[in-house]
Amino acid sequence: MLFTAGKNDIAVAMEPQLTPLIESLPSTVPFVGPETLERKRNRPFRARLGANENGFGPAPSVISAMRDAAPDVWKYCDPENFDLKAALAAHLAITSGAVAPGTIAPGNVVVGEGVDTLLGLTVRQYVREGTPVVTSLGAYPTFNFHVAGFGGRLVTVPYRNDHEDLDALLDAVRREKAPLVYFSNPDNPMGTWHEASKIEAFIAALPETTMLILDEAYGETAPASALPAIDISRPNVLRMRTFSKAYGLAGMRCGYAIGAASQITAFDKIRNHFGMNRMVQIAALAALEDQNYLREVVARIIAGRDRIAAIAAQNGLAAIPSATNFVTIDCGRDGAYAANILNGLIERDIFVRKPMAPVLDRCIRVSVGLDEELDLFEEKLAETLAALK
Amino acid sequence: MLFTAGKNDIAVAMEPQLTPLIESLPSTVPFVGPETLERKRNRPFRARLGANENGFGPAPSVISAMRDAAPDVWKYCDPENFDLKAALAAHLAITSGAVAPGTIAPGNVVVGEGVDTLLGLTVRQYVREGTPVVTSLGAYPTFNFHVAGFGGRLVTVPYRNDHEDLDALLDAVRREKAPLVYFSNPDNPMGTWHEASKIEAFIAALPETTMLILDEAYGETAPASALPAIDISRPNVLRMRTFSKAYGLAGMRCGYAIGAASQITAFDKIRNHFGMNRMVQIAALAALEDQNYLREVVARIIAGRDRIAAIAAQNGLAAIPSATNFVTIDCGRDGAYAANILNGLIERDIFVRKPMAPVLDRCIRVSVGLDEELDLFEEKLAETLAALK
Repeated sequence: MLFTAGKNDIAVAMEPQLTPLIESLPSTVPFVGPETLERKRNRPFRARLGANENGFGPAPSVISAMRDAAPDVWKYCDPENFDLKAALAAHLAITSGAVAPGTIAPGNVVVGEGVDTLLGLTVRQYVREGTPVVTSLGAYPTFNFHVAGFGGRLVTVPYRNDHEDLDALLDAVRREKAPLVYFSNPDNPMGTWHEASKIEAFIAALPETTMLILDEAYGETAPASALPAIDISRPNVLRMRTFSKAYGLAGMRCGYAIGAASQITAFDKIRNHFGMNRMVQIAALAALEDQNYLREVVARIIAGRDRIAAIAAQNGLAAIPSATNFVTIDCGRDGAYAANILNGLIERDIFVRKPMAPVLDRCIRVSVGLDEELDLFEEKLAETLAALK
Repeated sequence: MLFTAGKNDIAVAMEPQLTPLIESLPSTVPFVGPETLERKRNRPFRARLGANENGFGPAPSVISAMRDAAPDVWKYCDPENFDLKAALAAHLAITSGAVAPGTIAPGNVVVGEGVDTLLGLTVRQYVREGTPVVTSLGAYPTFNFHVAGFGGRLVTVPYRNDHEDLDALLDAVRREKAPLVYFSNPDNPMGTWHEASKIEAFIAALPETTMLILDEAYGETAPASALPAIDISRPNVLRMRTFSKAYGLAGMRCGYAIGAASQITAFDKIRNHFGMNRMVQIAALAALEDQNYLREVVARIIAGRDRIAAIAAQNGLAAIPSATNFVTIDCGRDGAYAANILNGLIERDIFVRKPMAPVLDRCIRVSVGLDEELDLFEEKLAETLAALK
């Protein structure tokens, strides 16, 4: 509400004024949740295969640890995430082919309320109004949401053969002198990946003043050859991982970033020190300890990917090879046709999503789920395609 | 690392450069957690009375709901917090003396990962580099942390007789034309409060372009007369409440803000839509439903306050009347003396904290805890005072 204040003709706002940046932002959401769709449809989904969640769930040992912790959640978290960072550093030094084993210290790890929160904090560290930030057209919308939220200028490059295009990303970084570039490996929403050697070459070619966010949310389901050895001597790489996918703890919010200590400490300047959930600090420790369960789940995820690919094939559609916990299916025609398939599935109580960017939008994206959910998907996909003929 | 690049003598940074604002921030923490102190001491505390947690814990019904939910946390949260916002709106319309009952809608509520997160988001909405923000000298450090983190200029006014000084806050807001002012009622760290009529007068006098954060984290333990009726027609007031204190869910992270729909929707522009923990969405609903347990706990908190006041008195110290779940004890001398008492207690395995700002720093702050913890506090306080004589 504005009115003209007396003889000086100064317009005075009569309610608190958001900053111009915040005022300029749309009220948007990176994703519409399945619960929102269920409320609109007034009917629950029968298969929840759209959000790349892990329907196999957390390990029984993790469920048990959470139940044991329930009476103690009157306590705030340990704001240092001390035990979890120590366990992650030890685990990563063994399992992730660290360049010099044993060199990953707790000071190379920051824990946050999911990778989303860490992405927001990273953007805030490097982005001011107008700062160019490079990503792929159609990559993770939540990253873009944070870039917009801090006034950054998104510079996107198209995918190439359904893969993120490392050469094009590098060109854009150099052209724009961008201080920040986002790249996910394996990729979401396409499920494709690059081998470690290509990523290492990309990192070597990257300007040292450009921070790379290497989002490895799907690292646990990828072939080992896709994960570069962790080199914490590089101050311009942040590797991001999560307990939301293979570990089955999406709803508990726990992600982490690995990098040079000099860059990791910057998070402490702005992160919510008491923001972590105490129970997930305990759950994540238990999950790390139960690597047998992780291996079982990853095997089930791989079997699920094969199953989804087979379902696609038997319907004359082509599954794009995936290193994630989902499979993106090329529906063989344009975006409108893929949207019709998506809507047909949703009408039939199957929650799936689809890429939205040009070219990628010819696909739908199906998360691995329980056998009975994939049975339903198989049935309803055939029905949908028949109805569209 | 800087080096001089060739003939043009331009200093080139060879690692990613934080924004000047982030670079300028200290690596600080608003509070040191008890776990950090335990690691330094290499010994656990025997009484955890420093962080204003609620040692009576969540309701058995809430613990049970969390345990039931544990296998389902592979699902992300509902990003709309639909059920919880509906329940909160209904609850608030009944219990909080809404100006026009029934007028509080879900659109007047935003749910976040604790009040800390909502404070950060609010600061981000109104504060740019150099923006003046008014608070009391010695009030909530986490709010100040966020103001600094977004480059705001903190303007502080001293407490008056251990109460936040509403007149001084108003004067500072007017003088500085500040778009944001923070005021907690009941207050932390002093535990004191103002009656609703005084707060209503403050709100009425506040420039309409200034947003008031009215932090009511301790609202449930305060006399009803301290809580103004909720008037969501006012676009310049955000009331903040939490499940961390009376509801005993500090470690689960759930807070909420109540305000005019026009201001509440601004949170959707920048909040982490999938940032909530799914389990605490369920736990908070269960907690709201169990008002009998809340009443029991509040009665135990009030009894605990009386007990702490009695312990202070029997040691010749004066407890400041409190409407919170802690009691601030005037140690009767200067800040150094109170610090000695604090350190003596910590050495004796009693975790307490103290205000740090001048005048307030003559006090220590003791959270209500279990009887056995207060027994220990009683014993160790007498020992500490004797040792200091």
